[in-house]
Amino acid sequence: MPFDTILVANRGEIALRVIRTCKEMGIRTVAVHSTADRDGAHVRAADAAVQIGPGAPRKSYLSAPAVIEAALSTGAQAVHPGYGFLSEDPDFAEICADNGLVFIGPRPEVLSRLGDKAVARELMTDAGLPVLPGSPGTVDSAAEAADLAARIGFPLIIKAAAGGGGRGMTVVRQPSELLPAYRQTRATAQAVFGDNRVYLERFCDSARHIEVQVLADGHGTVLHLGERDCSVQRRHQKLIEESPGPGLHKELTAAMARAAVRGARAVGYTGAGTFEFLVHDEGFSFMEMNCRIQVEHPVTEAVFGVDLVREQIQVAAGEELRFTQDDLQPRGAAVECRVNAEDPARDFAPSPGTLEQFVPPGGPFVRVDTHGYAGWRVPSHYDSLLAKVITWAPDRDRALDRMDRALAEFRISGPGVHTTIPLLRDVLADPAFRDGKHDTSFLDTRR
Amino acid sequence: MPFDTILVANRGEIALRVIRTCKEMGIRTVAVHSTADRDGAHVRAADAAVQIGPGAPRKSYLSAPAVIEAALSTGAQAVHPGYGFLSEDPDFAEICADNGLVFIGPRPEVLSRLGDKAVARELMTDAGLPVLPGSPGTVDSAAEAADLAARIGFPLIIKAAAGGGGRGMTVVRQPSELLPAYRQTRATAQAVFGDNRVYLERFCDSARHIEVQVLADGHGTVLHLGERDCSVQRRHQKLIEESPGPGLHKELTAAMARAAVRGARAVGYTGAGTFEFLVHDEGFSFMEMNCRIQVEHPVTEAVFGVDLVREQIQVAAGEELRFTQDDLQPRGAAVECRVNAEDPARDFAPSPGTLEQFVPPGGPFVRVDTHGYAGWRVPSHYDSLLAKVITWAPDRDRALDRMDRALAEFRISGPGVHTTIPLLRDVLADPAFRDGKHDTSFLDTRR
Repeated sequence: MPFDTILVANRGEIALRVIRTCKEMGIRTVAVHSTADRDGAHVRAADAAVQIGPGAPRKSYLSAPAVIEAALSTGAQAVHPGYGFLSEDPDFAEICADNGLVFIGPRPEVLSRLGDKAVARELMTDAGLPVLPGSPGTVDSAAEAADLAARIGFPLIIKAAAGGGGRGMTVVRQPSELLPAYRQTRATAQAVFGDNRVYLERFCDSARHIEVQVLADGHGTVLHLGERDCSVQRRHQKLIEESPGPGLHKELTAAMARAAVRGARAVGYTGAGTFEFLVHDEGFSFMEMNCRIQVEHPVTEAVFGVDLVREQIQVAAGEELRFTQDDLQPRGAAVECRVNAEDPARDFAPSPGTLEQFVPPGGPFVRVDTHGYAGWRVPSHYDSLLAKVITWAPDRDRALDRMDRALAEFRISGPGVHTTIPLLRDVLADPAFRDGKHDTSFLDTRR
Repeated sequence: MPFDTILVANRGEIALRVIRTCKEMGIRTVAVHSTADRDGAHVRAADAAVQIGPGAPRKSYLSAPAVIEAALSTGAQAVHPGYGFLSEDPDFAEICADNGLVFIGPRPEVLSRLGDKAVARELMTDAGLPVLPGSPGTVDSAAEAADLAARIGFPLIIKAAAGGGGRGMTVVRQPSELLPAYRQTRATAQAVFGDNRVYLERFCDSARHIEVQVLADGHGTVLHLGERDCSVQRRHQKLIEESPGPGLHKELTAAMARAAVRGARAVGYTGAGTFEFLVHDEGFSFMEMNCRIQVEHPVTEAVFGVDLVREQIQVAAGEELRFTQDDLQPRGAAVECRVNAEDPARDFAPSPGTLEQFVPPGGPFVRVDTHGYAGWRVPSHYDSLLAKVITWAPDRDRALDRMDRALAEFRISGPGVHTTIPLLRDVLADPAFRDGKHDTSFLDTRR
């Protein structure tokens, strides 16, 4: 047991996910929660729980002082940040260290450099990874944006340097749209991330979002765990993810895996991380690195038989990875569907409400990660993710058939509660998706 | 799709298990049910349901005419019998064939020969499989029993030729117990199986129950899927099963796997079947063959990545197995715990009642097969199995830690409802079990 007690600085399914692995490792867990999450599944599952503030994230899950105080008062030696919230905040990682707490993730300076997407682009270019044509660093004036746009060509995308999670991005299709989009993206970036810097990059209309999972310890070992295809997105939000990526040439995925390992090594990365690439007609290009566990990590776990959270904890405790690249042999295919509490009839607006009936699917090769339970009221303060359903099979077709069976089995009902299950089943039945010929524009341009 | 419609001639978790795979294969399913199972999960899950009689099994799930009529009236082409009930009844398999229905299992004559445990013993002896010293065939008189017992030695076990599922067996430790035990076992065999024939076999006090899963098609391919250790038993009822068997020499398990394949080939077996062996100081001995899917099949599925029910259906449709022995590579370790609705404080008497709260565990590498749900009243007519929890991990220790986590997470409550979860967790924590040093006497002789 590398740590006696870990504080989980998150909520929802990922907090529960981390607590489960801690329990299996014999590690005591402390949950933190807002007043809105008093009845949260993560609070019930943890050995101890500390209320750290009101429903508004900034005053609870995003409050570093409140989280640190909870950790210190409960005797935690380490903090697992999950995804979102404080997970990629270098200041928080620094404050943890200052307070003698192990932050389960990469070092603060690594977080800081990779968290700036413009800097990350440069670092990975230096490490020899291919990137799309774009601005060298951030763009500080409208005039500079216009100059660069002329050189890069259209369509292009304006991205917040501090962005992430699919937010703070605007696609620009023609010169006349550039300046309004530039100003608007800066304003959004300032509002959402508190940092108005943006950069430009060529935009690919028909590209696939392929990401590579890496694991690195503090002793020089950097390994990859294959790729995930996350091309089924709605407004840059992932809905369905799978591993391996369907129909990709082995040479291509091997090159991407090598690039990810090289990139991770170049920046001294430690822990679990993800290289996000675009795969397009001319090959692949680095987009950004996610310095945390991701929502879609279970498909990799299913295919490689590895508990990524366990590895994160062991690496954070200074241990060496106990397997080699050769030990990591993929088996079969896995797919994950994100079941969100949203109303398709109301343009996918979040539909919080009380879950009267909540019976997740079961049976062979089905995994469900959810914080939902019958009687729980879905709060309106947080993202709408209600459950992740993951299925595995020897091949993709059977994994998709299994997913459809599992989603059909999932019983969720309650006044005002709607979910994305009908949409997900619709996508599963779509010939373009079944053939693996879809790209990131698939959902937004469908019908 | 080998069949359009399959009737599932069973109830509870195994009926649901079969229905799930049928759905994934695009096969329509018909459930049959007794009046006591009107609200059964298998009834809700199937595409159609036929009520075939009252709660008493003989008048519903064991009634071949009722099942056949349900199949014919709903357009089913095949019948999956699950385990127990009609699954090993050669007459039922024959009646299916007579009515143009495919029985998903071995041919009637194979069922008939292997269903007679005394005959099976002889057949496997002829095929070169090791058996324990015992009677050559059944024993027809008390005098013959006494003669044979003197030759076999004590302890010995008297077994019903028509027995199975751990019933109709009596251990005899000294000559004075022989005749009463002989008479009582015959009476029990007559009452339970309608057949009073018994046979004798040497009894091993400290043996392990190791079984080998086989799969055979109708085209000459016979494969094995490794072994399962089912040594944790209470009064011959399995509680915890795992794959692979802990601490067994590779040479031993390889020899057992070869023996199982040889035995299956010798009798012209088709479909999924299990060779039950005893492993003792002198090696291993054939006990009996189970000609059906078993309760504990999921641990094999987890380790080999194979859906055994799917293979059963494909084989029954006349298809060839699509993999070779070399394709079947085990990965990691899996364990299954049977959660029964029983009251440990009342000597494990069944404790039926209404499930008020029923929240199975989830998360990484946890599978739950259950027909339970909140609001359901556990009927008193059937066995007490409420759920199977299966966990997988790269090694046994971690699979057991995961199991303990999963069992701790399982919320089952309701007036009068008790489960074996506390007992199971107790066993998981027992050093003898953790070390894999337990044998079949472990639970019954504990404390």
